[in-house]
Amino acid sequence: MDTVTVALGKRSYPIYIGQHLLHNTELLRRHIPGDCAMVVSNEIVAPLYLSKLNPTLNWLRHSEIVLPDGEKYKTLDTLKSIYTALLEHRHDRSTTLVALGGGVVGDITGFAAASYQRGVNFIQVPTTLLAQVDSSVGGKTGVNHPLGKNMIGAFYQPLCVMIDTETLNTLDDRQLSAGLAEVIKYGLIGDYAFFEWLETHMDALLARDPQALRYAIRRSCQDKATVVAADELEQSGQRALLNLGHTFGHAIETGMGYGVWLHGEAVGCGMAMAAEMSHRLGWLNKTDVERLRDLLRRARLPIAPPAQMSGARFRELMAVDKKVIGGRLRLVLLHAIGKAVVTTEFDSAMLEATLASSEKTA
Amino acid sequence: MDTVTVALGKRSYPIYIGQHLLHNTELLRRHIPGDCAMVVSNEIVAPLYLSKLNPTLNWLRHSEIVLPDGEKYKTLDTLKSIYTALLEHRHDRSTTLVALGGGVVGDITGFAAASYQRGVNFIQVPTTLLAQVDSSVGGKTGVNHPLGKNMIGAFYQPLCVMIDTETLNTLDDRQLSAGLAEVIKYGLIGDYAFFEWLETHMDALLARDPQALRYAIRRSCQDKATVVAADELEQSGQRALLNLGHTFGHAIETGMGYGVWLHGEAVGCGMAMAAEMSHRLGWLNKTDVERLRDLLRRARLPIAPPAQMSGARFRELMAVDKKVIGGRLRLVLLHAIGKAVVTTEFDSAMLEATLASSEKTA
Repeated sequence: MDTVTVALGKRSYPIYIGQHLLHNTELLRRHIPGDCAMVVSNEIVAPLYLSKLNPTLNWLRHSEIVLPDGEKYKTLDTLKSIYTALLEHRHDRSTTLVALGGGVVGDITGFAAASYQRGVNFIQVPTTLLAQVDSSVGGKTGVNHPLGKNMIGAFYQPLCVMIDTETLNTLDDRQLSAGLAEVIKYGLIGDYAFFEWLETHMDALLARDPQALRYAIRRSCQDKATVVAADELEQSGQRALLNLGHTFGHAIETGMGYGVWLHGEAVGCGMAMAAEMSHRLGWLNKTDVERLRDLLRRARLPIAPPAQMSGARFRELMAVDKKVIGGRLRLVLLHAIGKAVVTTEFDSAMLEATLASSEKTA
Repeated sequence: MDTVTVALGKRSYPIYIGQHLLHNTELLRRHIPGDCAMVVSNEIVAPLYLSKLNPTLNWLRHSEIVLPDGEKYKTLDTLKSIYTALLEHRHDRSTTLVALGGGVVGDITGFAAASYQRGVNFIQVPTTLLAQVDSSVGGKTGVNHPLGKNMIGAFYQPLCVMIDTETLNTLDDRQLSAGLAEVIKYGLIGDYAFFEWLETHMDALLARDPQALRYAIRRSCQDKATVVAADELEQSGQRALLNLGHTFGHAIETGMGYGVWLHGEAVGCGMAMAAEMSHRLGWLNKTDVERLRDLLRRARLPIAPPAQMSGARFRELMAVDKKVIGGRLRLVLLHAIGKAVVTTEFDSAMLEATLASSEKTA
């Protein structure tokens, strides 16, 4: 078992990465302070893994709620169903919520924990690659609003993250690729050596080689933990680097209807668009743009937005993005592979040109 | 203008108490960091005071949302309408929410601020006595769930609290009395001298004598600020003292349907019940029970619960209270006037007897 620490003073917590963690009673017991817990999962993950996790929780009173699957259920209504289950099962402030599932389950469970009785404990048990390398780490929690993704939420850190790599055996190929988008992101924004490693090991990752996956997960978690520790609340700008590809990507997710494109697919495409725009600005050379596009293609990720997304629709949706501050859009762009910057200093004609060119290629 | 400080390190903030504060542009400007704000008010307060506040905000881009009035609208649905208004008016993370109204408006606006885009600024401008002396101070924010009051929320501190005492001129008598319940509470839990002052000045307060009101508000805010500074997140038990009367009171509010009894009325009755139970336990003498009942009566507050509330219904509702920890009900009870304690150490037969006796007297 590997351990990566997210260093946040009193709110520091470990990320455990290994096999059979769903069966590790001792580990869970160490991180659940009370005598009561509720597992939040979804209709895809629960049949596979709830029966494995439940015996591990038998030393305490626990209940469960199974949510419908998918980004389109990451809503206030689903959140309310969690509160209702907690109240019906008489969970008090000493309870612990356990998020067993992918990014949607983790985000919504985290926000339920942040807001139930003004805050209860929670633990992340991510079962998709995307959740393991990204969304379960760092404390961003929340739900979507029909007018914008992740518009409602809180920064709220878990007590620990338990990554059982065996859960990847049942992940479908499309979800695996979506997770690889966030893995590639870490290389792009600040870890050139990891980007090179990914170029060498992409085939092994797609073949689900256990050692390759475990290495990619650990390195991604380390990269993310470093950024989160430096800028927990996304105030100094460093954490905003993690949003590379996300402003374009969120527009695609919201514009197409939540869940039509997977989050990772939209982010993959968004990174290709950010690279393209960085090239237009003269910041990133053509070779590096092509290296990125090649790696994304090999990871079976889209590199052009859907035909329905006009440039006008992109602009409309990007205008309500959380990265808009004081009316100005901030974008994460690239100076090189391994060197991302957050910036408002770009010629908006270059954004227009990027969107127009995407329209054409789509 | 008086200033009371809530000392919370980096999250410290001032409470301003005085006249004409709604017109004080300089004061507001000092506490709104961005160039954008949204006023949240309700259908009772907005016609009276929004036209006074709006010119004071003319130096920035501002919009407004007017909520329906009353505790029964302190819901997730109302909260969602605030998010929608913020998104429709393109408010980004640099915006400031201004809560103009009573406790319901303040609680729901505070939680909207805590959760919109994972947290934006907010300012409390309380217009009821209850909000001025209690709910606007200390950072408890949230909404109700059909199964329990304030079950969804966050600790989230405002940038400042602006109490314009002139807003009390339009408050109806029932709301004034409801606010006095929380004022009396401060005397009861830890400020015997203030309790005596209230016995002397109750008539002046009911006559809305400006000096008496201003003194009562300032002293209440000071008492509350001291407790909040010592125990912001209600972890050491000290802050829980502020819940005197609230466990009984919340049961009445939820049991009768939100808004049938005002929060302050339910708390007043709850304090009488807590005193009665403290007497049964041999902790509070009969004279002090009667002194409290007299003061509550003079403040035109109920001292017995509604006839519909059976002992069984009380028990059922109190079992899901946030003061239940590890399955055990904690109550705030009295050793003397000015000396409250949080305790699980009581003979449950005494609780039964108190509820049974309330049934009889109602």
